[in-house]
Amino acid sequence: MDAAEFRRRGKEMVDFVADYLENIEHRRVYPDVEPGYLRSMIPSEAPLEPESYEDVLKDVDRVIMPGITHWQSPHFHAYFPSASSYPALLADMLCGGLGCIGFTWAASPACTELETVMLDWLGKMLQLPEDFLAGTKGQGGGVIQGTASEATLMALLAARCKAVKCVHESDPQRSEADIISKLIAYTSEEAHSSVERAGLIGGVGIRMVATDEHFSVRAETLEKMVAEDKAAGFIPFFFCATLGTTPSCAFDKITELGPLCNAENIWMHIDAAYAGSSFICPEFRPLLDGVEFADSFNFNPHKWLLVNFDCSAMWVKKRTDLIGAFKLDPVYLKYDNQESGMFRSLKLWFVFRMYGQSGLQAYIRKHVELAKVFETMVKKDKRFEICAEVVLGLVCFRLKGSDELNEALLKEMTHLGRIHLVPCKLRGRFVLRFAVCGRTTELRHVQEAWTHITELSSELLLKKRNEA
Amino acid sequence: MDAAEFRRRGKEMVDFVADYLENIEHRRVYPDVEPGYLRSMIPSEAPLEPESYEDVLKDVDRVIMPGITHWQSPHFHAYFPSASSYPALLADMLCGGLGCIGFTWAASPACTELETVMLDWLGKMLQLPEDFLAGTKGQGGGVIQGTASEATLMALLAARCKAVKCVHESDPQRSEADIISKLIAYTSEEAHSSVERAGLIGGVGIRMVATDEHFSVRAETLEKMVAEDKAAGFIPFFFCATLGTTPSCAFDKITELGPLCNAENIWMHIDAAYAGSSFICPEFRPLLDGVEFADSFNFNPHKWLLVNFDCSAMWVKKRTDLIGAFKLDPVYLKYDNQESGMFRSLKLWFVFRMYGQSGLQAYIRKHVELAKVFETMVKKDKRFEICAEVVLGLVCFRLKGSDELNEALLKEMTHLGRIHLVPCKLRGRFVLRFAVCGRTTELRHVQEAWTHITELSSELLLKKRNEA
Ligand SMILES: Cc1ncc(COP(=O)(O)O)c(C=O)c1O
Ligand SMILES: Cc1ncc(COP(=O)(O)O)c(C=O)c1O
Repeated sequence: MDAAEFRRRGKEMVDFVADYLENIEHRRVYPDVEPGYLRSMIPSEAPLEPESYEDVLKDVDRVIMPGITHWQSPHFHAYFPSASSYPALLADMLCGGLGCIGFTWAASPACTELETVMLDWLGKMLQLPEDFLAGTKGQGGGVIQGTASEATLMALLAARCKAVKCVHESDPQRSEADIISKLIAYTSEEAHSSVERAGLIGGVGIRMVATDEHFSVRAETLEKMVAEDKAAGFIPFFFCATLGTTPSCAFDKITELGPLCNAENIWMHIDAAYAGSSFICPEFRPLLDGVEFADSFNFNPHKWLLVNFDCSAMWVKKRTDLIGAFKLDPVYLKYDNQESGMFRSLKLWFVFRMYGQSGLQAYIRKHVELAKVFETMVKKDKRFEICAEVVLGLVCFRLKGSDELNEALLKEMTHLGRIHLVPCKLRGRFVLRFAVCGRTTELRHVQEAWTHITELSSELLLKKRNEA
Repeated sequence: MDAAEFRRRGKEMVDFVADYLENIEHRRVYPDVEPGYLRSMIPSEAPLEPESYEDVLKDVDRVIMPGITHWQSPHFHAYFPSASSYPALLADMLCGGLGCIGFTWAASPACTELETVMLDWLGKMLQLPEDFLAGTKGQGGGVIQGTASEATLMALLAARCKAVKCVHESDPQRSEADIISKLIAYTSEEAHSSVERAGLIGGVGIRMVATDEHFSVRAETLEKMVAEDKAAGFIPFFFCATLGTTPSCAFDKITELGPLCNAENIWMHIDAAYAGSSFICPEFRPLLDGVEFADSFNFNPHKWLLVNFDCSAMWVKKRTDLIGAFKLDPVYLKYDNQESGMFRSLKLWFVFRMYGQSGLQAYIRKHVELAKVFETMVKKDKRFEICAEVVLGLVCFRLKGSDELNEALLKEMTHLGRIHLVPCKLRGRFVLRFAVCGRTTELRHVQEAWTHITELSSELLLKKRNEA
């Protein structure tokens, strides 16, 4: 394929993508295929000679499309949103065309420099304390990671380095391996599994902290655990707070946890993967109060800020903490750099400028309002209950009754494929999660979804009554 | 920006990218900017209201382009190639448009299924032993990682898990932390820094193995180290072999190292980040002989197989090793899944089909031939010496004389920005690396590069003589 053909095919692909997104709501949101469906539909080996582009595109329709879960559909209410917008798509095209890798400054100066400035822009939008920004007298700064999971791992490793160094200074006899074997990290029982994983990778102990009735970690609970662990000879060194938990979008009380961590010399990392985007709105910014106590903070613009996957924004308050720790091991630093291999800051730049802060705020507000509408409808129907406070774009609810009943409801929904939700467990109970995800989700989609859910529920309850 | 505007802007962007790539060779390959150049060129905060797309595009030309190192230029001979091709760009556009995340099967069935089949296609192209493939009776299979560094880390963690389990079985008293503190990993002194980093992250000891006169690790050397470490109470558990080292594209002798690792119960991982792509050619496939002894193998289609960044292909021989180890920790498994968040297999599919195996082989062969041409020219000029055997697309060479002389030559080259090379150290000496990188690099570019280098060298040598 030469440049001339690329011009033609590229323009066709732009139309293909635009057509797809304009008509996405008419597709079944959840695919109707069985595991293993694909293998028998294509050859078992790569062709020896080139095939035509027409043949490849035909197979996209024949093989790929039937197996796609349509994340960008306004009927998609599963997980959390995976952001997408036209400006971000354009930036990604540019990024692919440039095909440059920014693993050091020299490898692509614009890449690394735009990243630092974009994270300052974003940090200011969130009203992060000045210490987190790079272009100030402070000692902080931001980097783009691929995912929140990577950011959590980086934070835990930085904290591990710092803790080892710190203990080592007061007790030079003690080996690094011995210190690491005593380190304890903490996170909410409601935290994303990536936190536990980071602990396993880092080879440190990890304890799950129980939450209060709002699914929030409280300082009192953590304080007790820390005291017990210290008494038993362990070294508490890391706490990963969650703002906006995966199951129910709950918020750990960082205004009380922060001072505790600071006093105990525990690195506090904040994982706000989903909720973080909302902090650009003044009315939601109080949810971030307490960030001034944190050592590092992270959220995913690729979830809710109209920036396509992947793009996770991470800030550290004191680069000295990070760099100081990493200077012992210069190879770490390269890891950090290499993570920003792609020119991800381009899509932030395009999105921030084409939407403006006001456009982004309006987008967040619309999603939260739609969630409130859904919540109101659930509350009006006495057969249902709300299972967690609705703070942002997620509603946790269930049919009053058994887990089996709710499982049956979800199974039928998934089977029909008109809307897509995933469940969670809250206090051991099976709960349905309704997340407002799509860029094009409107009031009518939310109303239709609720009508669909109530109709299925009526059928199910009737069937159950008839069986009884 | 609505779909209609995206159609228009997207088509303009296709032309922008095509124009860029068609005219790239007329640009200065290495940018002429100073660190920090960008910050003062753009506002210090995101705009409150949306800006026009024209303004954004103008700034791409004004702010970004002057700071780009043009990796896709035929004058780019630094590092190793970062692949790019039109079919891969089209696949990436599609992937962005779909905007789906495949972290589990249900999250996007086509995503995970195409990935497994594409890695079978690719494995067959490399003639990997059947045990590495998923669609056979064997127990192996492939996954796509972002980078080789991630693949190495995954392999080391899997090996760590397996080793801990194994020691624990024979000695149930011993704690996991104690076992980990005794684990030793090995890799070549010429290995990529990501291997040492993986060791540091995993909290295990890591030893650098000395290489022979061809910069290859030999079994004899490793055997001695393993024996010494065992005698001292350590537990050798992991060896990362390199096929195609970063400095000089040297090859560890895996035919002798493999049996040693198997006998010592050491997990052998093969990192063939760059060289791996060449193994699709029968004449280079012998370089991979010995892979049958490996537990895992990895290379980067994003380096030399026309697939845009990022895409690193990893196979394990026994999923049971991996899954068996990970079943203890189900959260690990999620990590593994989550790594394939993006629909990266699409670009493999597009590239394999649009080039065919024959087209890909021809592409590899052309690069190797160009490197041979360069080598021949270097050898003919008695002022220069070749510093390592030229096996694939990389030539290590230097002016006979001091490191300072060669440093001055490279500095002048970088300053002029007509071609771009980076150096390496071989046996402590400063050496220039000439890598054939561009998709559009032709004989004339290589000849021009050599003319440029010899002219600069003549000037430099003359100046030196005059100074003396
Ligand atoms: C609170 C939280 N943290 C982390 C993650 C994982 O994000 P990523 O896929 O970017 O690693 C999620 C995903 O939903 C999340 O909700
Ligand atoms: C031998 C080798 N391994 C690993 C890497 C790192 O690759 P990645 O950037 O995909 O992690 C390189 C990069 O040049 C390499 O040459």
